[in-house]
Amino acid sequence: MAHFTGIEKIKFEGATSKNPFAFKFYNPEEKIGGKTMEETLRYAVSYWHTFTMDGSDPFGAGSMVRSWDRLQGMDLAKARVEASFEFYEKMDVPFFCFHDVDIAPEGSNLRESNKNLDEIVGMIKDYMKDSKAKLLWNTANNFTHPRFVHGAATSSHADVFAYSAAKVKKGLEVGKELGAENYVFWGGREGYETLLNTDMKLELDNLGRFYHMAADYAKEIGFDAQFLIEPKPKEPSTHQYDYDVATAHAFLQSYNLDDKFKFNIEANHATLAGHTFEHELHYARINNMLGSVDANQGDPLLGWDTDEFPTDLWSTTLAMYEILKNGGLGRGGLNFDAKVRRGSFEQDDLFHAHIAGMDAFAVGLKVAQQLIDDKVLENVVSSRYETYTSGIGLDIVNGNTDFHQLEDYAFGITDIKQTSGRLEQIKATINQYLLQAFAK
Amino acid sequence: MAHFTGIEKIKFEGATSKNPFAFKFYNPEEKIGGKTMEETLRYAVSYWHTFTMDGSDPFGAGSMVRSWDRLQGMDLAKARVEASFEFYEKMDVPFFCFHDVDIAPEGSNLRESNKNLDEIVGMIKDYMKDSKAKLLWNTANNFTHPRFVHGAATSSHADVFAYSAAKVKKGLEVGKELGAENYVFWGGREGYETLLNTDMKLELDNLGRFYHMAADYAKEIGFDAQFLIEPKPKEPSTHQYDYDVATAHAFLQSYNLDDKFKFNIEANHATLAGHTFEHELHYARINNMLGSVDANQGDPLLGWDTDEFPTDLWSTTLAMYEILKNGGLGRGGLNFDAKVRRGSFEQDDLFHAHIAGMDAFAVGLKVAQQLIDDKVLENVVSSRYETYTSGIGLDIVNGNTDFHQLEDYAFGITDIKQTSGRLEQIKATINQYLLQAFAK
Amino acid sequence: MAHFTGIEKIKFEGATSKNPFAFKFYNPEEKIGGKTMEETLRYAVSYWHTFTMDGSDPFGAGSMVRSWDRLQGMDLAKARVEASFEFYEKMDVPFFCFHDVDIAPEGSNLRESNKNLDEIVGMIKDYMKDSKAKLLWNTANNFTHPRFVHGAATSSHADVFAYSAAKVKKGLEVGKELGAENYVFWGGREGYETLLNTDMKLELDNLGRFYHMAADYAKEIGFDAQFLIEPKPKEPSTHQYDYDVATAHAFLQSYNLDDKFKFNIEANHATLAGHTFEHELHYARINNMLGSVDANQGDPLLGWDTDEFPTDLWSTTLAMYEILKNGGLGRGGLNFDAKVRRGSFEQDDLFHAHIAGMDAFAVGLKVAQQLIDDKVLENVVSSRYETYTSGIGLDIVNGNTDFHQLEDYAFGITDIKQTSGRLEQIKATINQYLLQAFAK
Amino acid sequence: MAHFTGIEKIKFEGATSKNPFAFKFYNPEEKIGGKTMEETLRYAVSYWHTFTMDGSDPFGAGSMVRSWDRLQGMDLAKARVEASFEFYEKMDVPFFCFHDVDIAPEGSNLRESNKNLDEIVGMIKDYMKDSKAKLLWNTANNFTHPRFVHGAATSSHADVFAYSAAKVKKGLEVGKELGAENYVFWGGREGYETLLNTDMKLELDNLGRFYHMAADYAKEIGFDAQFLIEPKPKEPSTHQYDYDVATAHAFLQSYNLDDKFKFNIEANHATLAGHTFEHELHYARINNMLGSVDANQGDPLLGWDTDEFPTDLWSTTLAMYEILKNGGLGRGGLNFDAKVRRGSFEQDDLFHAHIAGMDAFAVGLKVAQQLIDDKVLENVVSSRYETYTSGIGLDIVNGNTDFHQLEDYAFGITDIKQTSGRLEQIKATINQYLLQAFAK
Repeated sequence: MAHFTGIEKIKFEGATSKNPFAFKFYNPEEKIGGKTMEETLRYAVSYWHTFTMDGSDPFGAGSMVRSWDRLQGMDLAKARVEASFEFYEKMDVPFFCFHDVDIAPEGSNLRESNKNLDEIVGMIKDYMKDSKAKLLWNTANNFTHPRFVHGAATSSHADVFAYSAAKVKKGLEVGKELGAENYVFWGGREGYETLLNTDMKLELDNLGRFYHMAADYAKEIGFDAQFLIEPKPKEPSTHQYDYDVATAHAFLQSYNLDDKFKFNIEANHATLAGHTFEHELHYARINNMLGSVDANQGDPLLGWDTDEFPTDLWSTTLAMYEILKNGGLGRGGLNFDAKVRRGSFEQDDLFHAHIAGMDAFAVGLKVAQQLIDDKVLENVVSSRYETYTSGIGLDIVNGNTDFHQLEDYAFGITDIKQTSGRLEQIKATINQYLLQAFAK
Repeated sequence: MAHFTGIEKIKFEGATSKNPFAFKFYNPEEKIGGKTMEETLRYAVSYWHTFTMDGSDPFGAGSMVRSWDRLQGMDLAKARVEASFEFYEKMDVPFFCFHDVDIAPEGSNLRESNKNLDEIVGMIKDYMKDSKAKLLWNTANNFTHPRFVHGAATSSHADVFAYSAAKVKKGLEVGKELGAENYVFWGGREGYETLLNTDMKLELDNLGRFYHMAADYAKEIGFDAQFLIEPKPKEPSTHQYDYDVATAHAFLQSYNLDDKFKFNIEANHATLAGHTFEHELHYARINNMLGSVDANQGDPLLGWDTDEFPTDLWSTTLAMYEILKNGGLGRGGLNFDAKVRRGSFEQDDLFHAHIAGMDAFAVGLKVAQQLIDDKVLENVVSSRYETYTSGIGLDIVNGNTDFHQLEDYAFGITDIKQTSGRLEQIKATINQYLLQAFAK
Repeated sequence: MAHFTGIEKIKFEGATSKNPFAFKFYNPEEKIGGKTMEETLRYAVSYWHTFTMDGSDPFGAGSMVRSWDRLQGMDLAKARVEASFEFYEKMDVPFFCFHDVDIAPEGSNLRESNKNLDEIVGMIKDYMKDSKAKLLWNTANNFTHPRFVHGAATSSHADVFAYSAAKVKKGLEVGKELGAENYVFWGGREGYETLLNTDMKLELDNLGRFYHMAADYAKEIGFDAQFLIEPKPKEPSTHQYDYDVATAHAFLQSYNLDDKFKFNIEANHATLAGHTFEHELHYARINNMLGSVDANQGDPLLGWDTDEFPTDLWSTTLAMYEILKNGGLGRGGLNFDAKVRRGSFEQDDLFHAHIAGMDAFAVGLKVAQQLIDDKVLENVVSSRYETYTSGIGLDIVNGNTDFHQLEDYAFGITDIKQTSGRLEQIKATINQYLLQAFAK
Repeated sequence: MAHFTGIEKIKFEGATSKNPFAFKFYNPEEKIGGKTMEETLRYAVSYWHTFTMDGSDPFGAGSMVRSWDRLQGMDLAKARVEASFEFYEKMDVPFFCFHDVDIAPEGSNLRESNKNLDEIVGMIKDYMKDSKAKLLWNTANNFTHPRFVHGAATSSHADVFAYSAAKVKKGLEVGKELGAENYVFWGGREGYETLLNTDMKLELDNLGRFYHMAADYAKEIGFDAQFLIEPKPKEPSTHQYDYDVATAHAFLQSYNLDDKFKFNIEANHATLAGHTFEHELHYARINNMLGSVDANQGDPLLGWDTDEFPTDLWSTTLAMYEILKNGGLGRGGLNFDAKVRRGSFEQDDLFHAHIAGMDAFAVGLKVAQQLIDDKVLENVVSSRYETYTSGIGLDIVNGNTDFHQLEDYAFGITDIKQTSGRLEQIKATINQYLLQAFAK
């Protein structure tokens, strides 16, 4: 059956088209910096937000109107698979992502859950044969079920640790079966509600053990996906252990895991942690740990993860700048971990929202590439740090100096010629690039 | 003497010009919606941020390098006047704004302060004869001096109330002398540090009395400027009384002052209070109290008033949308209550920053006018509220119904046909307008 | 059947008791300031958090384990009534509060919902005969059902306005039937998600009309409960119209409703809006609009309404100080709009949590009364504002002065003798009172 | 000359004393847990907040009234030393802390600054002979002077790096000369204003090099103080590199510095970063990196470092709990990095404020020790994690399991018996301990 009737395949029609179901800026075949937009952007649809979530919030019941609403259980799960591949095709996206419970209902016990999962995975595998859509990453949802009330790999109860391990084991097998390029760990309940009843040291040690076992098992079964940690602060547990990229980096180093993991960085998680999206990308990039991206945006005036579709062109530009400077995302991609607003409850909104997001990052890509082509920021940086390319600066960078020599040098300083950081001018320049990107 | 050597008058050269000292989007003579950009935007330079402040912050001494640095006292004040008119002319701005202490140093007592003020006001008046720059508004700084440590009009000490009144009295006279279009009240110290030692009722009553006396005096001397309250939360007092527009609106109504005042709305103050800039403008507009604007922007990840030059094109577009829907700003204007960053310490940065801000609002104006011309949002709204134009909806709006009739009606409802709010599509549409504004 | 087995009636056993199911500080019969604790504190249990909510959060399914879990529909509703009165009795609380949908399931249409409601209301009325528990307030839940997706009284669809009116009409009738002392309006969906598609003026006008019709109908049926607005910012709509007390005060004044409403003030809503709990209480108090209190607390490091049981003794002390200075809460009370944490999923936690909250406010009451008895803060305030009791200060307060006279006076000022605000000393003093309250 | 006339030595007079210049809870000689309060708490006075700062804020000039106000230059510096030792003696504090520029004015060049420093250091050394006050730590202020506008060790200019090194070199020498127990690095300007002009990788590499050189030099001169990093987010640079403890931990690990540094943790910096004070202490403790503490508190409703004197007894209790579980602070201490409010401008306020803070931590110590003596939280934790002491849980902890075995185990799970986290009960229990601490 057709789930999204009346909507044809979304095509690039350019900025002047009045068709609301057309890309205005995303042209998958257009080459930017030597690659097609599709190759660089590697867009993915989030199964959960697009096919599973119902629009409920802490104060309201589900509002979404979906063609598969009247179904239940495995019938519902199958209708969603059907709908999802129709959607991937119409949106022309090359990737999708899911948690285990998004695609198949949990059974009354683990074996039954796995059986349900196997059936749907088989169905997805069949559909993938006739689709260009591939699995960017999958993951295990170890946070929704009440058994995870006190954590999963950091649960205060050993049985929950074991259950979590079994779910991740299955997740790795599913990832292998479907050829996933990455496997994501988001620690939804890995954190604490209060330190007053928490053995944080034990919990973190257990989390370290868990990750090592996961890595060992992936190796054992020959699943070579990139492992990704997805940092997030403040939600749902009062203090999430993987607060931000730097915090997770400290953890990975402490437990000798930093060579096994990269990061899946989400815009809204960045801002909740007090950082810009580009800061988190940059930190990961200079540590060679930028793996993949959850493309969305938050509302800076609200204190929770709103998971909005990205439309802030300034932010997509700076994000794409980091991604291009990283040489692209490698096996990662831009996954729209974004949900239509509760008030955008019609199926058409799923298209409008993805178009909005895909166009926004396409703009970001184009502007960022032009900034790079013209060395706009590179020139600013190289001139700003010029003093480190010779003399005492070069000695510093090369490690050829010490406090004695530096003090001697400092005694001789009469005036330090510093120059303006030129922030306002740089921002104006980026605005110009943005406004000119599609004027040609 | 020339203060800004090497910089010619800033002219419109369009987006493709590479001249960093040129407007790319602000063309004062270009007509948008029947008025020139200059007429609609009514840009003003803030004397304090541009000519007085030194770049100091709570952790650092002043960093700004200014041609008038070596001067002191009245010599310094005069050099700044000279520099300011040179700047207005080179920037081609039609307005400026100041606090009393920005333009003239305080003396050892009130008479001496007033004398200093008179001298500089005379000088400014002379300069105005040969300049197109007019005074958008002036105000009295009743917050910097330690005498205001416990408030000004809300001080716990009656002498300070009197002193504050005298300063505002002088401010009104200065405003009249220089033909100010507005007079602004920003309650820098009108708030409390702790409720534990505060008689908030008395303080608010006194503030009400103060405003009435100010209005009376302005009338008495025939100074017909628009009176403006500038709301702000959290800084410098722990709880500012004029937290946001709605709070100040409640105050003005309580003290029968709502017909005497409009609002001067600052973007950064809006976001500090948890609102978008456009929310504050909209609230004021629908209450017919939108007076003037302090054009800047904050850093949503920081918790203080950063007063950055505005470069967020999304924000300037939505702000200009409110302003155009208001029929313009009347006697108000867009005052750049914005300071160059501490790291942007060269005099050139004053130009770069103002160009960045003026271009950003010019873009906002152009995009907003196009949205209005095409009735983009108007159509969304009129179709969304259509049910209020007939039947029970019209009865509601006309006040022709009650709970009995509404209940009867509700009993007959079987299904309510609601439609999507279409937020994602609307945002994408605005992005398209933005990116196409300068493509023609 | 007994729902809370193994727990006896909670009694006052004093601070040294080791019984976790005993009040340590709340002694209902103890007289403080001439009234018993029970009379002053007027505690109420929130039906929704205690008997209805299941512990779900945006990332997790319900975790609560309740004796009535296996029931459904009206059977479930009746079991909850049964449990609730058992709970009120064991907790010895004099009041409870509910929304319509907390106590009875919605039917397939309004008539059926009302029928369900009538049946449960009848049952509650019966139970009330044998219980001391009275209805502090009730309200209509006009936010959970998807019909309220675009608002209730501020919906973009007239049918929803009518439906909302019908629900409030019924709520007023239920309140009358059960002898409610107050009727609360919390505008869960009265706000906007985005200004881009919103006619805020129309929505606010409609809200004003709605409140007038509600007041008219209450008068018509002789329901003399105090009407209360409960302000809240940021949740669930992006911008709630009743952001904080001051904002709602502005609204009530604009629509001539300020003599018909008081405020129901919630601690967590206060802090989400950027204010202390005591600020909101104080603002309402000095405007003679302090009606009732939702007693809970938030996590200042999180950006959503955590609705925690109140345990912050500093906050309960300052809140009780405002309440005592208000002459008590009148017909209002302290309603525990607070939920046990998702990890506190056992039924016992309902007792632990209420004991924690009731003890915390009992401590607050005792300390606040001692502060008042000793005039600790009154003395600070009266000495701090002494200059307003004579001379120019008295002229100011009496409205016997103007800017001319004030300027004359200011010219004569040589030195203003201000004194320290003494915040640190005052805080230390309050800490002493707190630590000594139960040492006697 | 006497700077603090009319105030005698502050002594313990107990909670019932009405003398505002007396300790009510801090009794230096009282033994708690086997040590005197003085030995455990190791209080220090911050030179800068107490003797140097003037009460200015971004909107106001200095308000503090000090006996040394009329002096300047080296005379002022000497008067402050004199006053400081009088203050230490009257407050009976065992430690003090300073930045270089707090104690001596900068000269026109580095040599002159060092000369000034030497003179004052000599004077301090003399005063220390007759005082019990010792130097807890010193540091170099590499943030106030405009030369640090673009950073110090992370400056974009090599000369500034050199200058910073020379200042730290001197700081290490001064620390050695005065027997400092610790040396602190707070990276006031080590961060970025914008990524757009920043080479973050180079800056962090340089910072790593700087710390290694500092450690080498301290070793060379035989200065064996504990090196401490003081994390802080958001202020003064937009993004500080040492955002929080975890971020700095990641940095220290990346640059092989984690064995050379511990942390100096500040309460207000913790909350600005989105963490509780106790979280930061706990994180450092379980990583064996808890070095010293900056004892203050922030205003959770404001977004900047308010550096208030600590009076939140809940917070001091949880902080002291972490410190006691750490076996004390070793060579660290509790430094009051706290300033009297701008409105608390009298010299007496310095005493009131320190008494408030010292009493607050004394209360925290007493309550925390009682919680430990009674194993209140230890019992909660050990019972909560009991499943890790045998069976599969013990296998997990011992590293004797893998995903195969865990899955097998999980298949066999029928029901997981989890227990409530009991947060509300635990909080109520702590409140009881608090209120009973001084009732005996």
